[in-house]
Amino acid sequence: MNIKTTLLIGTLSLSLISQAQEPIQPIKPASNINLAMMELGKKLYFDPRLSKSGFISCNSCHNLSMGGTDNLPTSIGHKWNQGPINAPTVLNSSFNIAQFWDGRAKDLKEQAGGPIANPGEMASTHAIATSVVKAIPGYVQEFELVFGKDKINADSITSAIAEFEKTLVTPHSPFDQWLLGDKEAISAKELAGYELFKNSGCVGCHNGVAVGGSSYQKMGIIKKFQTSNKAIGLAGVTHKDSDKFMFKVPTLRNIELTYPYFHDGATTSLKQAVNIMGEIQLGRQFTADENDKIVAFLKTLTGDAPAFDLPQLPPSVAETPKPEPFK
Amino acid sequence: MNIKTTLLIGTLSLSLISQAQEPIQPIKPASNINLAMMELGKKLYFDPRLSKSGFISCNSCHNLSMGGTDNLPTSIGHKWNQGPINAPTVLNSSFNIAQFWDGRAKDLKEQAGGPIANPGEMASTHAIATSVVKAIPGYVQEFELVFGKDKINADSITSAIAEFEKTLVTPHSPFDQWLLGDKEAISAKELAGYELFKNSGCVGCHNGVAVGGSSYQKMGIIKKFQTSNKAIGLAGVTHKDSDKFMFKVPTLRNIELTYPYFHDGATTSLKQAVNIMGEIQLGRQFTADENDKIVAFLKTLTGDAPAFDLPQLPPSVAETPKPEPFK
Repeated sequence: MNIKTTLLIGTLSLSLISQAQEPIQPIKPASNINLAMMELGKKLYFDPRLSKSGFISCNSCHNLSMGGTDNLPTSIGHKWNQGPINAPTVLNSSFNIAQFWDGRAKDLKEQAGGPIANPGEMASTHAIATSVVKAIPGYVQEFELVFGKDKINADSITSAIAEFEKTLVTPHSPFDQWLLGDKEAISAKELAGYELFKNSGCVGCHNGVAVGGSSYQKMGIIKKFQTSNKAIGLAGVTHKDSDKFMFKVPTLRNIELTYPYFHDGATTSLKQAVNIMGEIQLGRQFTADENDKIVAFLKTLTGDAPAFDLPQLPPSVAETPKPEPFK
Repeated sequence: MNIKTTLLIGTLSLSLISQAQEPIQPIKPASNINLAMMELGKKLYFDPRLSKSGFISCNSCHNLSMGGTDNLPTSIGHKWNQGPINAPTVLNSSFNIAQFWDGRAKDLKEQAGGPIANPGEMASTHAIATSVVKAIPGYVQEFELVFGKDKINADSITSAIAEFEKTLVTPHSPFDQWLLGDKEAISAKELAGYELFKNSGCVGCHNGVAVGGSSYQKMGIIKKFQTSNKAIGLAGVTHKDSDKFMFKVPTLRNIELTYPYFHDGATTSLKQAVNIMGEIQLGRQFTADENDKIVAFLKTLTGDAPAFDLPQLPPSVAETPKPEPFK
């Protein structure tokens, strides 16, 4: 072993040790993916025929050109219905302990079934959506290949969508490169922001691979969160008063892209969002300089967006049930 | 020159001769494309921030996963407004003599400006859309690269969108392969359908590269077209009574994907559409066998869809004017 190799191994060991000590871990690209199921799920994700109107797809509100969100305070649903809560990003959502702000779906598959049948979102039903997919010859073939003959149902449809969503992770952010040993990947200011992020307590909730998504926390621990939004969080699921305003901690991955912020989507700048979090969760006023550094750090969490060809959807035929956009 | 080469040249010459005699020409992939402008236009095409709501992009109604249409009778616009006419496909629209059913836009660039400022579609204005794009740092950089400094305006925005749209052609359909000399590319039945298509007179209007798009014709030459749609066609532009119900002949390229049919979008099957055309334009009742053959031919006009990575849009910042989805 020459000196260069020894030094290299030494450096790598140090990196691994330091990484092991960090409360945030780098994103690994998805593994154990069924590629045929993923491709089918990608089509379904982009297919507005899963909605009553034939106009709204998963991608409408979880837009993969826009950080996996719609960048609106709350979403637009069937007949321009105004949604009750900010649409969380689909990116890295496989790392969440549960889905939706209140965790009412245990996994991506269960989540995928929600909006399809929500009258204010895609406004279809699982039965209708299934009958549409069953009457599209291209899907019939593809489902047979992936799931076997006559296996088109809500279960297989949402399984395929979830398989695609598992691939929607964003590795290779500057911060992950830093975690993996490239000490030049982030600037001194960004690193100072990370130190502040840890020392101020932000990391107590925003940690792990997704820098969030791993626990429920009360929105407004120290000070009440000012909002006109009516969501009560986990309490709506558990019916426990103590769970009122408990929300799943959102991921901070790609936070630069997933504005506006918080479950009410009322905060449009990252600067404001950091200050509000400091005040209501940590009882702390960040100075302008501190805020600046933390924001700089947060921007290092933007990773490589999933890259794939826009899918081509199999066409409907005369027998396919028609969308009802204006009924 | 050996016998094989001589035969090959003979076959190619025959193909070229036969192709030259056909009233339909194969699609050539786009040429003379400014790639940087095309990439910028692709982003703008997918960007819902050109709409008032932040929810509707060019791709919403001219969906490139769905044959460049929305597959709805008429489109859904701002606040779920019901559009007055079927959204024509953007695919191969560069071959049209003019844009919109009534030809009121002379080219793709002029067309692109229409929906942005239409209160029932994207409901923005050119001034607002420009101010939004100007306040997105990623766009500012990209426009400078493509158009020069301080050149973000309705003209450059629509130029970029049009440059992208010029690339949205669909070469390599089975019929084009046949036109280019591969006599096995279409079946005997499909060829018989093509002969019927020519001999019955369909080709009188549906000809050229786009199998349509090259002239205006009265909808209902022989018999009145039954519709509740109020569009009067070219007469709305020229104010000539003789232009009433004159519409631009739609392309038949990818017609299997661009259902529902006609300017009212009321016909959902290609079979029905062929029969209606026979009756009202040609005064002819196709037999079931004839209809079947023509439909089989029409399906050979489906070409290779444009393939590209889903674009990633540059994020808004705190200063970017916000969408107003519910105002």
